[in-house]
Formats: sequence, C-alpha cells, structure tokens
Amino acid sequence: IKKIPWSIAQAEKGGYKHFMLKEIYEQPKAIADTISGKLSIFEKKNEKILTNFDKIQIVACGTSFHAGLIGKFFIESISRIPVSVDYASEYRYRNPIIDKKTLIIAISQSGETADTLAAVRLARKKSAKVVAICNVIGSTITREADYTIYTHAGPEISVASTKAFTTQLAALFLFAVEVAKVRKTIDEETENKLLNELSEIPKKLKTFLDSENEKKLIRNIALEFYNSQDALYLGRFVNYPIALEGALKLKEISYIHAEGYPAGEMKHGPIALIDEKMPVVVIAPKDRVYEKIVSNIEEVKARKGKVIAVTNANCPEIKKLADFTIEIPTTEELLYPFLTVVPLQLFAYHIADFLGYDVDQPRNLAKSVTVE
Amino acid sequence: IKKIPWSIAQAEKGGYKHFMLKEIYEQPKAIADTISGKLSIFEKKNEKILTNFDKIQIVACGTSFHAGLIGKFFIESISRIPVSVDYASEYRYRNPIIDKKTLIIAISQSGETADTLAAVRLARKKSAKVVAICNVIGSTITREADYTIYTHAGPEISVASTKAFTTQLAALFLFAVEVAKVRKTIDEETENKLLNELSEIPKKLKTFLDSENEKKLIRNIALEFYNSQDALYLGRFVNYPIALEGALKLKEISYIHAEGYPAGEMKHGPIALIDEKMPVVVIAPKDRVYEKIVSNIEEVKARKGKVIAVTNANCPEIKKLADFTIEIPTTEELLYPFLTVVPLQLFAYHIADFLGYDVDQPRNLAKSVTVE
Repeated sequence: IKKIPWSIAQAEKGGYKHFMLKEIYEQPKAIADTISGKLSIFEKKNEKILTNFDKIQIVACGTSFHAGLIGKFFIESISRIPVSVDYASEYRYRNPIIDKKTLIIAISQSGETADTLAAVRLARKKSAKVVAICNVIGSTITREADYTIYTHAGPEISVASTKAFTTQLAALFLFAVEVAKVRKTIDEETENKLLNELSEIPKKLKTFLDSENEKKLIRNIALEFYNSQDALYLGRFVNYPIALEGALKLKEISYIHAEGYPAGEMKHGPIALIDEKMPVVVIAPKDRVYEKIVSNIEEVKARKGKVIAVTNANCPEIKKLADFTIEIPTTEELLYPFLTVVPLQLFAYHIADFLGYDVDQPRNLAKSVTVE
Repeated sequence: IKKIPWSIAQAEKGGYKHFMLKEIYEQPKAIADTISGKLSIFEKKNEKILTNFDKIQIVACGTSFHAGLIGKFFIESISRIPVSVDYASEYRYRNPIIDKKTLIIAISQSGETADTLAAVRLARKKSAKVVAICNVIGSTITREADYTIYTHAGPEISVASTKAFTTQLAALFLFAVEVAKVRKTIDEETENKLLNELSEIPKKLKTFLDSENEKKLIRNIALEFYNSQDALYLGRFVNYPIALEGALKLKEISYIHAEGYPAGEMKHGPIALIDEKMPVVVIAPKDRVYEKIVSNIEEVKARKGKVIAVTNANCPEIKKLADFTIEIPTTEELLYPFLTVVPLQLFAYHIADFLGYDVDQPRNLAKSVTVE
C-alpha cells in the first residue's frame, strides 16, 4: 500500500469560492515545495540519466504541453541540448526517430494521461530512457518511467490546471540547471544565480497575488470583456507558450474562443481578425523581445483592437499604448512565465465566474484524459 | 540583368472572379511544373549539401510555416533525419543551437520575408548551410542561401497563399526523397513508388477541381456557414498542419475566427467550445489515424457540433456521422495534404466571396511581409 500524503481537509476550498481560485493562490507554496523537493530528486545514482543523451524529446498534452514548450527554452538556453516538443497524441503516430541517445521527458499532472502514457511505452520499447514529470505519486506514468521528478503541487481539483503548470515549470527549470551543471555547460556562479532567481519566484508571486490593486484591476478587466465572443493572446520568446496557455484557460472555463499566437506571426494572418471588438492580451515583460512586442502592440492599436498588456512597472511605451496594463514583478527573462501566467489564470477565472459557469467542472472536459 | 519568366498575361485573372480562385485552379499545373523542375535541382555538385548534416531546422512564417510542419513528416518518414520546425520570428530570438551539422531550410514564397531572411543570416553566421525553398527568382533569400529549390508556381497575386503552398510541399517531398536516396535510407523500388505517387497528384487534383459535384457541394457548405462567428479545424498526423492552414485561410480572407488543432488535443480544452453553432472541419482521409479521427468526430457530434469532413469515397463511418462530406481521391498517406488542403482553400474562398469581402486584398494583410 502506497501512502498518499494528501488529507481530505487539504482538498477543501478553504474559504475560496472555487478550487481554481484556491489553487491559483496556492502557487507560491506549490512552487516553493517543488523547489525544495529538488535535493531528493537528483541523487548521484541518477547522474547517468543526466549525461547519457544528446537530444531530448518532450511529450505531453494540453497545459502540460505548454509547460513542455517552455521547458525547451529552459533546457536549450541553459544546458544547450536540442529539445523537440510534441503533442503526445501526434508523437505516437509519427513513427518518431528515437535512439538510445534520446531522452524522453513525459509531462502529466495525473500521470494517467492516455496519449502520454502510450508515448512513454513506445519510447521505452525503442530503448529510450524516460523521465516523467508528474504530480500524483505512484501513478501509471511514474511507474513506467525510468525516473520521475515529482511536482509538489498537492491535489489539483479544478479541471483547468494552474498550480500543476507552474510546478511543472519549476521541475523543468531545475532539470535544465542540473543537466547543465553535470555537463559543465554553466559555471557555479551562473548555477547559483539561476537557482537564486528561481527561489525568489514564490515570494514575487505572493506579492503579486496579495496586491489588492492588481486583484481589483484584473477583476475590472474581466468585467469589461466577459461578454466577448473571441480573444487573441500574443507573446514572444518564453511567453509565446504563455499566450497559448492563457488562451487555453479562457477556452476551457469561459467557452470564449481565445487563441494564442506568437506575436511575430500576427502579420501573416491573424491580424486580419482584429477590430474594435477584439480583446488582445499581450504578454510583454521587459526581456530581449520587449521592443519587438511594443511594435506588435502598435499594430494591434492601429487596427483599433483592445489591448490588455501584462508587463513590468516602468514600461512607459506599453502604458501609453495599452488599454489596460497589469504589472508583474521583474525577474531573470527565462523565468517570466511563472509570473506572466498567473494574471491570465485570474483573468480567465473571473470571466467564467461573471458568466456564471461552473468554473471547476467545465462542460465537456475531464480532469485527466485517460482515454485516447 | 535576370530574366523573370513571367508575362503580364499570366498575371491576369483569365476568366476567374478573383486571383485566389484562379490560383487554386492552377495548382495541378504548378505542382507538375515544380516536380518536372526537379531534374535541374539536384545536380551532382550539390550532393555534399545532401549528405553533410545530421539534423534539419526548418524556419518559415505563415502558410510557409505550415508547409514546413508537413516537410518534417516527409523528411523524418522518408529520410529518417530529425527535423525541427520553428516560426522564423521566434527562432531568431531563441539563441538557437546551430552547428556545422545543422542544415537550415528556409521557406518563403516571396524570398523577401523579413523574419525568415533574418533567420537565414543568423544561421549562416553560425556556419550552418542554408537551403531556400522560394518562388521568386533572384529574391533576397535565394541570393543569401547556399542553395535554392525553386517552386514553379508562377506569380501568386492573391494575398492568401494557395499554389505557393502546394508547390512548397512538392519541393519538400522531392527533397526528402533525394536525401533518402543519397543516404540510402530507401531502396530504388520505394523511391520510384514515392515519386510515382507524387507525379499522380496533379492529375488527381485536376479530377477533383473539375468535378461539378464537389464544386457545387463546397459552395453549398460555404453558403450554410458563411455567417459563422467561429470555426474549428481538426486533423491528425500529416493533416494536422492542414487543419492549421485551412483555419488560416478562413481567418485571412473572411475574418472568421477559425482555429486549427491536432484532433487528439480536443479533449484537453477546445472541446469545451463546441456547441450546435460551431462548424468543425475535420480532415479525415483513410490513413493510419483514420479510426482515431472517426472517434474524434463522434465526440464533436456528441456535443452537437456541425461536422464538415474531408475524406475519401467509401468511408461509411464518416459519411454516417458528418453533416457534410467532401470526397477527395486516394493517395499514399504522406501525400494527402496536397489533396486535403484544396477543398479548404475553396471553402474559405467561397465564404469570403459570399461575405462580399475583397478576397485578393484582405484588410490589414500584405502579400509579403518585408518588415519584422
């Protein structure tokens, strides 16, 4: 018998109107727990797993797939190992190129996602090693993987995933740093700098979540747009997957047709959609693509779209252009997804709540997709 | 002085209401011209380009990016070389991992796409070799690439790309076969079989385009749905990128918010959007994922979505489930994108025409995006 260290009390709403809201607010703790769990993760005996490959294939579905896309940035930037990311449901039918030097990373909150599990089995049959990133101890994928990095999000009840996502990001970042360290692609100073920045994230997130101003602001923006038919989410670099994830959250629980796009692709099609009725959420922290995304915001405004920007304080260019500006704390540029995704989770939450939908149990969706 | 072998007469509408419609109908000839151009493409002196790499990075934007996603299937399936595909606007800011064993394939109709050109320059600076797939002779990207495979689509005037796309597919398929041949990953029999199947495509496409029944059917479906607010496009395997491309066509010229999705991901979010008002275009030829996509259609119907299926004759399962069934000729499964994309081009065309929009010059869009 496996002991499942979650109590019934933990699974209750604790004063929040919905599990989703509770779980959004649990993220600082969940991320901190995942980071402090790290020491037990990378033991000496597992070092071989961290050295004996020359490429990584990430497979996942839904929100975990978006974590995988960000994982590619983490691993390629920090450890300089090429990473491919594929939908598990696509990967398994692709007759993929797998060899003994391919490491598979399978990401699944429940550890029971049917397509991800099938991808794991396929890869193992072709003698690849599999690292699982899972939240549920003893789940099927953790039992079949060669190695599991657990996220310590605690039970996630809401169908729309929030804290599982940010803890998956933490696990992927830790993995990237550990691989880089073992392979000596970063020096100790860089390693410490990266880990320190990561360890600051829970505090920064808590500051943001506790700010009454930001809380009120996001609620007000949701009030402005909850009757929208459609929405666009734009991001670049590490925040392109956050655009996808923000759009998915809105889709899942509010049934508004939101779509995420890499902002640089706008001119190749989706800009045709923009008119004065279209809310456009732009994720624009002060990073290497800041100037580029300011231009993208100008393009949206030229077509009279309504811009909701997620950015930092002291970004006057954006403040001047955007209709609404949500300010998040600053961090190292790779780590912004931890901070930019949270206002988008809250935005989707408030919209669904204003619409009177069952936030925790959206129509047509199941918490874990255990059929193909 | 370079001679541009296109006459003014060729650039006129030739009896068609719009350039887009004309260009859709030109596809059998454009593909045939691109295939017969092959002999001059792969000369002995270029063999080194076809052997001296161990991975491929495709960079492109918009419709060319979708061709790239299908190119990954062609190259990985036939030549067994791992391929990554990235938006050029993302790739260039990624600090990508590039070495001398990385071959870059840059796809651009105009050869002037700013982000794709910047990606080419970045890769060359890091000493990677670059193969361009372009339609415009002497364009900037062809001048900067190490080697160019020309598509022979002729001038494409409509902003929404059609024949450039299918000729890019032909070029990518020829490339995949040629690389496989030089590297001996396929035998002569397989090579001949694949090339024969490809050479049958123009004829099959012409049969489809000439069928009065299919013409009338697609027009009628467009008449049924041209007032829709939204649309979903679903596909799997090689037709997942066709779902993206079909949705992009509708977005570009009809301003309907269409989104493409890998059908297996539906349960992880977008299925929440489906109700009786939502048209769902499903690309479902008889290939390795046929049974899977039949299940996906069942899920859509269970939520009362309206299904427009692109499939083959003799697919009774789909005929029974779908509200509308467009039948395309059969072919080798990798080659279906050539045939499945065309009804989606026509569907988008007729919807935009019914809506009275300027089909060839959609709002906010330029034919080639020469700014970042």
